[in-house]
Parts: sequence; structure tokens; C-alpha cells
Amino acid sequence: MNKQMIRYVLGMVLLIEGGLLLLPLAVSLIYRESTWLHFLITVGLCGVLGGLMVLRKPKRRSLFPKDGFVIAALTWIVISLVGAVPFWISGQIPRYIDALFETVSGFTTTGSSILTRVEDLNKGMLFWRSFSHWVGGMGILVFMLALLPAMGGSTIHILRAESPGPVVGKVVPKIKDSSRITYLIYLFLTAVLIVLYLAGGMPLFDSLCIAFGTAGTGGFGVTSASCADYSPYIQTVTTVFMLLFGVNFSVYFLLLQRKFKSALSSSELWIYLGIFGLATLAISLNIYGSFSSFGQATRHAAFTVSSLMTTTGYATVDFNLWPEFSRVILCILMIVGACAGSTGGGFKVSRVVILAKYAKNELQKLIHPRTVKVVKVDGKVVSSETVHGVLVYTLFYILLIAVSILLVSLDNQDASTTLTAVLATANNIGPGLNAVGPTASFAALSDLSKGVLCLDMLAGRLEIFPLLVLLLPSTWAKK
Amino acid sequence: MNKQMIRYVLGMVLLIEGGLLLLPLAVSLIYRESTWLHFLITVGLCGVLGGLMVLRKPKRRSLFPKDGFVIAALTWIVISLVGAVPFWISGQIPRYIDALFETVSGFTTTGSSILTRVEDLNKGMLFWRSFSHWVGGMGILVFMLALLPAMGGSTIHILRAESPGPVVGKVVPKIKDSSRITYLIYLFLTAVLIVLYLAGGMPLFDSLCIAFGTAGTGGFGVTSASCADYSPYIQTVTTVFMLLFGVNFSVYFLLLQRKFKSALSSSELWIYLGIFGLATLAISLNIYGSFSSFGQATRHAAFTVSSLMTTTGYATVDFNLWPEFSRVILCILMIVGACAGSTGGGFKVSRVVILAKYAKNELQKLIHPRTVKVVKVDGKVVSSETVHGVLVYTLFYILLIAVSILLVSLDNQDASTTLTAVLATANNIGPGLNAVGPTASFAALSDLSKGVLCLDMLAGRLEIFPLLVLLLPSTWAKK
Repeated sequence: MNKQMIRYVLGMVLLIEGGLLLLPLAVSLIYRESTWLHFLITVGLCGVLGGLMVLRKPKRRSLFPKDGFVIAALTWIVISLVGAVPFWISGQIPRYIDALFETVSGFTTTGSSILTRVEDLNKGMLFWRSFSHWVGGMGILVFMLALLPAMGGSTIHILRAESPGPVVGKVVPKIKDSSRITYLIYLFLTAVLIVLYLAGGMPLFDSLCIAFGTAGTGGFGVTSASCADYSPYIQTVTTVFMLLFGVNFSVYFLLLQRKFKSALSSSELWIYLGIFGLATLAISLNIYGSFSSFGQATRHAAFTVSSLMTTTGYATVDFNLWPEFSRVILCILMIVGACAGSTGGGFKVSRVVILAKYAKNELQKLIHPRTVKVVKVDGKVVSSETVHGVLVYTLFYILLIAVSILLVSLDNQDASTTLTAVLATANNIGPGLNAVGPTASFAALSDLSKGVLCLDMLAGRLEIFPLLVLLLPSTWAKK
Repeated sequence: MNKQMIRYVLGMVLLIEGGLLLLPLAVSLIYRESTWLHFLITVGLCGVLGGLMVLRKPKRRSLFPKDGFVIAALTWIVISLVGAVPFWISGQIPRYIDALFETVSGFTTTGSSILTRVEDLNKGMLFWRSFSHWVGGMGILVFMLALLPAMGGSTIHILRAESPGPVVGKVVPKIKDSSRITYLIYLFLTAVLIVLYLAGGMPLFDSLCIAFGTAGTGGFGVTSASCADYSPYIQTVTTVFMLLFGVNFSVYFLLLQRKFKSALSSSELWIYLGIFGLATLAISLNIYGSFSSFGQATRHAAFTVSSLMTTTGYATVDFNLWPEFSRVILCILMIVGACAGSTGGGFKVSRVVILAKYAKNELQKLIHPRTVKVVKVDGKVVSSETVHGVLVYTLFYILLIAVSILLVSLDNQDASTTLTAVLATANNIGPGLNAVGPTASFAALSDLSKGVLCLDMLAGRLEIFPLLVLLLPSTWAKK
């Protein structure tokens, strides 16, 4: 293990976080809030700690795959621990475990909150909370790799460990360019969204925060009403953009290169849109009795489906009150999640596609034992390592969910609450159902449950393996 | 596909069912119940139909794997359709869908019931209901293979399709002998249990019925109280025997051969007992506040854990009222199930063991990509086909559960009811929680849900593939 390099990268990450914290500091100053001081203290902390850690450059820059996992896991833990400091020392969120929950929820783009009244936070804190969604959405390590001069040839291991989905599409040969282009697309789409919000008469502060939450598929709002009070125009724009940020960014990259045929031949894209359409239709039919028109039911159904399948978590209505059939569909969407290589979380559509094709092949083999079949997606053979990677991911995913449910059940809440608290955090969605539903918060859960759900959020964002590798004794054993 | 052979085997199965129906017929006559006539009519139906089907012997006896699946699926469907007839034509269960649900639940050793008052059935019907557990427990095709003169060399495909668990232990070289020995062990253990019940002062009728339900890990009782009214002695005997019938029968076979070391080195056995011990301890600690002593809490916890993990479904207390932590443990036990090659249902401990070892290996490969590892159980290499079989089984299992939950959720029950109705049937357990809890019944569900759960029970007992193969168009396509 290359410990020097791990230290160096973590130092860089802290320096970047210090830089990012200057934005909410500025917001605090603009709104003349006294908490600018607490942001400044945290910036100082990042500067001193990070500065010390990057002082000595690592002798060797090469990394093994496991180093990549360890860096990703530690990075996300460190940025969360430090990012929680302003909430805590300012007293805006009095308990550190709550501040940490909120920050982990922010960076992992979950959007679950322990705040019973969001309005109680001041502007600077609200901005930092939403901005953490935007930073976490595309990944802080990807950001670092986009910014910094080349870190050596093995940064692919870092990128792989942080990127969502089973396949890292090599968009361009050079990782640095790839990260930069992805971030530029991300920035551009976010800017378009902000302009559309402003055009709809939304105040600048709200536009920024809600755009961050949409782009990162996070879901933190600036009022307790989430998106219920915004106009139908704003809600529709949000529906469309949540869906757009849940698409694999390589599709946009191909569109930029004018490779339209190749961009639109992605089966993951069409299955993703198909699930959106089908789920919206099914829920609309199930709920339209309680709306004044089918069109209105469809609008709310589309918003909710888009919000939960992209793992954003915004709400226009209290979907907790919908019939059980719709609630089960929402639970399934929560698990499936968005596309690989997007800012969305969940299990990812591409994994479902690979598993479905694998299962179909194996079933054929059962009937005709001598058949030899490989898994193909979009006409390309998926390597058996990738297929096994998806299978083993599925197993650890099930284990994570089962153990988490068991621990959270100690709070003795009802089944829907326990189950969806875990699903909503492990898939980085935000609200669940019943006691953790869209109009409620995670405040009432025990500290044990909050701790478990923090780990679930990190495991969900990093797709389990980095945390597992970090915890394996063999990672730390000396040869 | 060898259609002649399929017809012939189904005919044999009907004749056997006709023979088995003579027992409840006799019980009816002993208790002077008028419903002996309805058993006689069904016996006649089996005789005529079965007789016609075996009249012409098949020219060719060889079978392909898919033929085995088709035979297993059709056998279980046919015996259920016919087995429901006495309940229905006697008016003891007025609606055919309910009679079918009860019969499928019986043969698949599920034990879920649509009866709100079990006592409303007469003795003959109660006997047939419990006896179907005993028949279904070890498998009707295994029974046929044990009884009949050799059916040709490819009967292994039939046996494989009906036997629970990923590995068919070739206990003895000849399948016929293997089936016969397994059935003799089964018969012997059941006889011991009946004697122990009688020694505890239980009436003969109850002893027979409860022993059938315990041996087949079924769970139909003869009163609405299930096992709550029996003495602690009877309850403890039942706890132990449920556990014994959940053990892989090859362990008993090895013990018979005095291969003690080999019998006791089965890791599945120890993990199975370990899960039993741990779950009992955890639940005892969780519930003992509501009992007069820790010992009493442990006794009820042990009974319930043994009942649910072996997928029997008897109850001594209303575990539906236990805290959520215990309920979640019970749900997990429901899914894990008993050992392969036992009469118990569920996912099977051996599958969990294989998945755990596979996941551990793949995780190691992730860190050290050049490692080559194979899955070993009890020192023997598990073939990659078996591992893939377990993986693809897991995927179809998840799909089955998800689709079933979605369809049952149309009844608009709460989450615990919907989820556990599906888990309790697909894993052949019996009672679930809330509206389908141990003191309630499945009567209130819609016909759609009952139909879905019937399919789930069959899919659970036959481990999905036979039904899947039956439904695949390619199975029926002409070459």
C-alpha cells in the first residue's frame, strides 16, 4: 500500500474542501450572518491540516487497485467529518451526530434530513447544505483529477473506486481530460437549469440551491415544503432535469461529438426511460381518483417517479399517502436507481440489464446444458469479470440492506419506516415512507440508527466496495 | 421432448394420489362422516384418469433435463388441482379457489390457510389436509421412484427437478435405492414422533396430524390455536423434531452407515444449528420482558425460530405482537430457510454458504486481481455450474418476490402484510405478520392475490426453475 500517496491525496482533498467552503462563507457575508466566522474557522482547519499533509510529496506515485478503494473511502469520510463542523460549531445543528448525518446526506446526494424545520437554518448553512449535493454528485475525487496536474498513471484506480456503475466508460483516452469534460457538461447543464428557474420567477438563492439539489440528484430543499409550493412550470422543469441528470454522462459526451447514432443506441438509456414511462403510467392510474384530473395526477406521478428513480428525493405531494401498490412501485424504483455514470444513486439500470441478460443465458443453459453464451450489452460482450463484479455487488448489497434493517429495527418502528429508512439512505434517495416520509424527518431515530444510516449513505454512494476494502484486515496486513 | 413419457408419469402420479386418498376415506368412515363419498368420487376420478394415461406404455423412456422440469411442474399442478376436489365438492370449502389454495399450501408444505376456523372442517378433511404435508414433504415423485419398478436411466432428471437445494447428494449409486432409503428414514422419524406425542397424552388423531405437519415442515394444525394449547412437553418435542426434519437427510443416511465423522463434518449442519441458536438468543433477549421468566421466553423463542426457519409455521404464541427487531429476525429466517435435501423450504442454508464463499473469493479478487480461487464446501470444490446455478436462482428468487409483492400490493394492505404474505408462501412457511399473522388467515385476500400466492407456493417448493421451464415458449417449440 502506498501510504504516502494516500496521505498526499487526502491533503489535496482537504485543501479543495477549504476552497469550496469559501462559497458559503461569501453567502454568509452577503446576508450579514454571524456564522461567516464558523465557515472561516473550518476553512482554516482545512488549510492547516491539508497544508501539512501535502507538504512532503510522495516518492512513489503508483497505486494498486486497493489503494484506489482506500483513498475513495477515506476521502468521503474525511470530507464529511470536516464538512459537518460549521453546522455544529455554529450551533445551527447542536449535536455533532446530527450535523454529520446532514453532511453525509449532502455529499452522498442522499437528501435525508434530521431537520424538522429546514427554515431554521440560515442562508449560509442552507447554501452549504445544497452545495454539498453538487460537489458530491459528480465526485470530489473526479473534481480533483479534473483540476490538478497529472497525478501519475494509476489515477484510474481512484476514478474507478469513486465512479458509479459497473463500467467506467473510457470517454477519452486521458483520465484528466475525461474528468474535465464530464465536469464541464455538469456545469453547463446546471447553469441552464438555473437560468430556467430564474426565468420562471424563482428567487436567485432558491434557484441555486434547488439546481444544486437537482443536478447532484440530492434533494435538499430550502423549505419544509420541498417542491410543493413551486409553480407547475418549475416542477415540470425539475422533473425533466432530474431525469437528465440520471442519464449516463457518456451519452452527452457522444452527443457533443455529434455521434448521435452511438449516443442514442444505449439500451440502458431506453430502458431507463421505459421504466420512467411505465411507472408514471401505473401510478397515475392508481392515484388519479384523489386528483381533480388525470393530467394533474400524471404530473405529480411523473415528478415523484423522476425524483425517486433518479434518487433525488424532492416531493410535490405527500406520496406517503398513496395506495400500497404505488408505494411498492416507488420502493422498487428506489432500489433500481438511475443510470451508471450519472449523478444518481441506487443499484443502477445497467446492473439490472446485465443481471437480466445473465439470468436469461443461464436459464437457457439449464435447458440446453451444452450451450455457450456470453452477456452482450449494446452489441458488445460484457467481460465475465464485469458480470461477476455485478453479481458479487448484488450479494453485498443484499447483505448491507439486511444487516442495516436488522439494526434499525431496534428502534421498533413499523416495517415501512424501517425498510424505507434503509432503502432511502443506502440508495441515496432522501425521504422514505411513514415516519421517515416526505413530510417527516430522520430526527426521531436513535443515534445507533443514524450511525448505521450514515454508513449506508457512504456505502451507497461509493458502491460498497471501497468501504469493504477499508474494513478488511488483509488490506492493512504487512506482507 | 418425450411427451409419451410425461403422460405416462402423470398417469402414475394420479394413480398414486388415488391410493393416498384411501386414507382420508378410511378416516371419514371411522368417524362416520358423510364426506367419505366425496373422497370416493375423487379416488374414482384419479383411477379413471390415471388408468387411461398409463394404458399405453411409452416407446422411449429416455428423458432430457427439460423433461424432468416439465414433469415435476405438471405433477405438482395436477395433484393440487385434483387434491382440492374433496374439499370443494363436499362443500367443506365452498369456493374452488380457496380449496385449491389450501391444497397447494398442503402439498407444498406451506401451511398458509384460508380457513378462519380450522375446527369447521370435519376429521376426514383435516386428515387429508395434514397428510398432504407429509406426502409433499419428501416429494411425490421421489415416492413414485421409490415404489415403482425402474423407469429407465434418466429418472435422475425427475429427481433433480423435485429435490430441494443446489446439490443432489448421490447417497447411493442407484436412484431407486436412494429414494427408498430416504423415505424409510422419513417414515421412521415420523413414527418416533407419533409415539412421543402419544406418550405425552396427545390424542391419536392429533398426534398423526401434527406429526405429518412437523415431518413435512408444513404447519397445518387441527385447531385455530395451532400449538398454543399443547403442553410444554409436546411443544418441546415439536421444537426438536421440526429442527430434525430441517436437516439434510444425507446426514441421517451417513449416520445409518456409521460414518459419524463424515456426517458431523457438514458445515451446512453447523451453520444451520448456529443460526438457530443465535436467533433464539437474540429474540429471547428482545422479548423476555413480556414473559414471566427468561426460560419461558427462550422456550417460545426456540419454538418460533425452529418453526419459521424450518418453514413449518406452527405457533405457540402470537409472534406478530413481538417488537420489530424480533419480527425482522423472523423475516430473515423465513428467507434463509432450512438445509438442502430436507423437507424444509426457503432459500436453503447451503445456498447461503455457497454465496458467502463466492462473495468472499470475489472480494479477494478485487483487491488482488490475479488471484484464482474456487468455492469449496466441506473441503470439496463446488463446480462453477453449481455456483452459477445458485447465483441465477438468487436472481429469479428476487424477481419472483418483487413481482409477487407488486401484485399482492393491489389489495392495499400494509407493508408487513404484503411483504410477509409473499415471503410466507414463496418460502413455504405458512403464517406471515399482521393481517396474515399466526392468529389470522389468508381468507381476506383477493382472488388475484390467492392465485399469485398459489404460484409462489409451487415456485417455492419446486425452486422456481421447473415452473419457469414450463412457461418458456422455447420448451414447447418444435425443432
